[in-house]
Amino acid sequence: MRIAELSRRTGVPVPTIKYYLREGLLPAGELTSPNQARYGETHLHRLRLVRALVEVGGLSIAAVRGVLGALEDPERSLHRAMGTVETAIVGAGAASDDEVAHEQARRFVDRQGWGYRPDSHAFRSLVAVLASARDIGLDSFPGQLDGYARVCGKLAEQDLDYVMTAATKDAAMEIVAVGTVLGDAALAAVRRLARRELSAVRARAEREEARPGEGGQDCAEPGD
Amino acid sequence: MRIAELSRRTGVPVPTIKYYLREGLLPAGELTSPNQARYGETHLHRLRLVRALVEVGGLSIAAVRGVLGALEDPERSLHRAMGTVETAIVGAGAASDDEVAHEQARRFVDRQGWGYRPDSHAFRSLVAVLASARDIGLDSFPGQLDGYARVCGKLAEQDLDYVMTAATKDAAMEIVAVGTVLGDAALAAVRRLARRELSAVRARAEREEARPGEGGQDCAEPGD
Repeated sequence: MRIAELSRRTGVPVPTIKYYLREGLLPAGELTSPNQARYGETHLHRLRLVRALVEVGGLSIAAVRGVLGALEDPERSLHRAMGTVETAIVGAGAASDDEVAHEQARRFVDRQGWGYRPDSHAFRSLVAVLASARDIGLDSFPGQLDGYARVCGKLAEQDLDYVMTAATKDAAMEIVAVGTVLGDAALAAVRRLARRELSAVRARAEREEARPGEGGQDCAEPGD
Repeated sequence: MRIAELSRRTGVPVPTIKYYLREGLLPAGELTSPNQARYGETHLHRLRLVRALVEVGGLSIAAVRGVLGALEDPERSLHRAMGTVETAIVGAGAASDDEVAHEQARRFVDRQGWGYRPDSHAFRSLVAVLASARDIGLDSFPGQLDGYARVCGKLAEQDLDYVMTAATKDAAMEIVAVGTVLGDAALAAVRRLARRELSAVRARAEREEARPGEGGQDCAEPGD
């Protein structure tokens, strides 16, 4: 198909497609004349992938390139791909030299029986968050982490089991690359839904306690 | 204290502090001469808050203003503040007119017994994610959501219980505003740690299965 049809079928404007081609996010089409190229189903699929990463994941062009690179790594293992994808998504991560926060993070991974990898991006992000919580005096914050670890352990099992449902290794790699991004976005949305729901339920219960016999209103608010 | 000391005690450069003052993120100091102002502990605390929101949460100036507005809303209730904060953090959210994805999302909230609020940001984000998953052919993706809902229900309980530990309403509001941002960042980090850990454990188990008697190496990788 021509680039115009690629655009029509995906809704991605032609100039954006040309930009992705220049940036190497989309492989070049087959030249049919010096000024025209033909594209196939592979291009269509890849373009949809790129769009999901950019629009849903909010990834930069550099991050998308990193994710696609993980898909095409000849030495790829799922474990390695997962690391590459997460590094591409989150960037180098903030660093903090707060030693107390570092020690809080170290004790936390110890308590979970997890490996202590002080140079990993995830560990460094955690230290930065803990340093920030200390900075503004939220001293009870580190106590929240153990609850997070319990649910994250369950999520990790679910994520990896999901990857294993893929029929081929290519499909599995794609779930790692795209599923991580979509999964993060979905989890954020579901978490907000769950929190709003519980908060609404508790707010209603409080109102009913305050005004017995008058309760039962819905507590939706404008912009809710 | 002078602005220079405010800068020294927080590590925020003086020009950045002046920018926050102009943008109204920090209240004006008490003028001691036409060109000099004095700042107090309130400014120090507020500046640390703003920095946490910008650096850890990656929030825009507009989003920080929204979060601070929720803290100062005279009609504030915790439930309303939580909604304001989440709206400020995530912005208007992507929209999708994919009716199948919308129906998948509606059935999902129905299954949880949650309210159906099609105009809420969280619901619209979820529709956008589901539309994207459909678009790239990840048909099994919606099946992941129920597992997410289970853990998010637990997280919501933990988050709200944490807010309730605050001694004063001001402190509770601050946990809502800042804890949400720090909590999201911490959850993301812990989730990555948990996933890497489980992935490493499974990769090691696979290698040991493949080469019996040779196992037991650590599976850390460069950049891990």
